[in-house]
Parts: sequence; structure tokens; C-alpha cells
Amino acid sequence: MQVVVPFAAGEPKTRLAETLTAAERREFALAMLDDVCATIRSTGREPQVLTTRRIDIDAPLAVDERPLTPAVNGVLADGDPTAIVMADLALATPTALERLFSADGDVVLAPGRGGGTNALVSRHPQFRVDYHGTSYLDHREIAREVGASVTELDSHRLATDVDETADLAEVLLHSEGTARDWLLDAGFSLSVTGGRVSVTR
Amino acid sequence: MQVVVPFAAGEPKTRLAETLTAAERREFALAMLDDVCATIRSTGREPQVLTTRRIDIDAPLAVDERPLTPAVNGVLADGDPTAIVMADLALATPTALERLFSADGDVVLAPGRGGGTNALVSRHPQFRVDYHGTSYLDHREIAREVGASVTELDSHRLATDVDETADLAEVLLHSEGTARDWLLDAGFSLSVTGGRVSVTR
Repeated sequence: MQVVVPFAAGEPKTRLAETLTAAERREFALAMLDDVCATIRSTGREPQVLTTRRIDIDAPLAVDERPLTPAVNGVLADGDPTAIVMADLALATPTALERLFSADGDVVLAPGRGGGTNALVSRHPQFRVDYHGTSYLDHREIAREVGASVTELDSHRLATDVDETADLAEVLLHSEGTARDWLLDAGFSLSVTGGRVSVTR
Repeated sequence: MQVVVPFAAGEPKTRLAETLTAAERREFALAMLDDVCATIRSTGREPQVLTTRRIDIDAPLAVDERPLTPAVNGVLADGDPTAIVMADLALATPTALERLFSADGDVVLAPGRGGGTNALVSRHPQFRVDYHGTSYLDHREIAREVGASVTELDSHRLATDVDETADLAEVLLHSEGTARDWLLDAGFSLSVTGGRVSVTR
């Protein structure tokens, strides 16, 4: 099974603009990508980074300038068993990814918070993705249409993509990777107020 | 193993005040509690509701007016194996709870978003809770201090407590219980904008 990590190299993590400068967002996004690649390797697999432009990272690159959905569907069109793992899953562990990779089902979906699909496995040659909107529900429907069985992979670590400031708290709470180190070096720490824990800088 | 569901009957779900009236919050909180109790029963166990005052629900009640932490520690002081499952885990399924109940470890912790502890199992007579602040990290530390082994239960369904408006989207996306029906009857639906899916009413 090939394991593909899409990466938008242009202007990553725009929803962190209130917290990080453009240069910082690029650095932080690359740190998370590094962590995700290392975690995939820890499961005994080799990640392939599907990037919109050439980047400096120690992993096999495939460059595809198209948006996420057509680029991933270009990979799935090969018909080979494929895992797609988002590049901002800073909380992913080998255990969580191994649960994904080894789950039964033609299509295995790890929902992200807010209706996204943060990671998936497709073993069905006709399954395709559509990352716009409530992609988790759409992917279930697409699988149904092509007759593919669907397994839900229930993981907080894989459900937590790091897009917004509040998500940085999850990285500080649950990650031990370079992305967490980057946040600490940048002066972030957990902030305990009412309700959920957030971050301050 | 006893399975205890704490419930704050006084003024539940205050962080949903921007979206729901006080009466609606009470109704919705009871619908979630109903769902959680039914899900526990589906695993073959009987829930005990630990409530701050008498409520009208079809489950064995224990009334304890104290705040969450001392009330739960009063239960744990018995020394019996105990699971504590929060009453607002509207996404919980029998599969997710069975993973929790059957996980190895003196203490099993299911982290909630933002550093909370949404569900746990304690099989160690000296383990106690402290739900204030980053309780997930604190519970790991408390377990270490008493020599209890800790297992992390990695579940998006158990990590998702329903406290804020954005959490309602998770209920509409992933639940099939009475809490979801309640939201639909109250006029909520998914709203697809940029980024994560939210709700409108």
C-alpha cells in the first residue's frame, strides 16, 4: 500500500494568520509534515509527499500543482491500495496510523473535526475523493455509490488537524514531535482559563 | 465494574447560552444523558447517574450536591473498579465505550478536546480525579504518583464533549441518537462555509 501525504506548499495554514506570520506558518507546516512522515516511517512504510511545488524535505516528492481533490484523485486513479494522510496531523502516532492502515474495509475513513476527512485508506479502484465541504459524509456516499464497504476509524489523534489557534493546544498537550518543539521555541504555552485549555504566546 | 455518569443538573451547558435558552439547554443536556445511558446499556452494563439533584430519567440515581471532582472521588473512594463517563458524550457508540471499558491498564483515560478527561476507567484503589484545568495531564500525573499504569484511549467520539456551538456540528455529523433528533427538531442544520463545518438555526 502506498502512503501519500498531500502538502499545499503555496501559503499553508492561512487560518493560523492571527497567531503566526506567513514565514512562521511555512516553518510550522513543514515541521508538522516532518512529524507525519516520521510517524509513517515508524509503521514500516515509506511516505510519498504530494506537493504543489518542490519543497526541501527528506522524503520522495511528487509535484502536482492542482488543488487537493484532483491531485489526490490522480493518485487514486492508479487503482492501487492507497492511504492518504494529511500533512497537519501533528498528533498522529504510529499506533494511530497502524490502526488506520490495518483496519478492514474497502474504504477506511478517519473523520476530522468539522466534517473533514483527515486520513483514509482506499482499496477500491473506483473510490474517489471530494475534499470540499463535509467531505466525511461525501466520502461515505461516494463509497456507497461505487459499492465499497466503509470503516470508520475513530481516533482523536487523527481527527485533530491543526488549522486554528485552539488546535495548537492539542499539539502541546498530545504531541512529542518537532512541531511541538517548534511551538515551544516560538514561545507558546498552555493557557488554562474557563472551559477548554488554549494557548498563549 | 460500575459505570458512573456525572450530571450537573443545576444549570447545564452554560457555554451553549449563545445558541440555546436555559430551558433548551436543560432539555438538550437530558437528551445527551439519555443517549449516553442507552449506549452504556448497549455494552451490557448498567449506568448509574451521579446527579447534583433529583432528575427525571430512567436510570439508577445517586444524588451528590458537591462539585464534580469531590463527587467523583466519593465514588472512587469505594476502591471498586469504576468507569466515569461524561454525560455530554453524544457521539459515544457501544464500540467506542467497549474499547474504553476493555482497555488494559490500571487507569484508562480518554482525553477530551482542550485537555479535559471525558471518560476514564480506574482499577486502582488510590487513583483520584481532579477535573479542573488540564485534567488529562493532571490525571496522568496523579496515576504516576500512586503507581498506576495509564492507557490512553484514542477516540474522536469520546474526545468530543458537547460544550460549544461548534460541537453541535459533530452531533449532527456523527450521532444517531435522541440528542441529534432534538437538534434537528430545534431547527439546526449543518452549515458549510470555509474550513470546518458549523451549524445554523
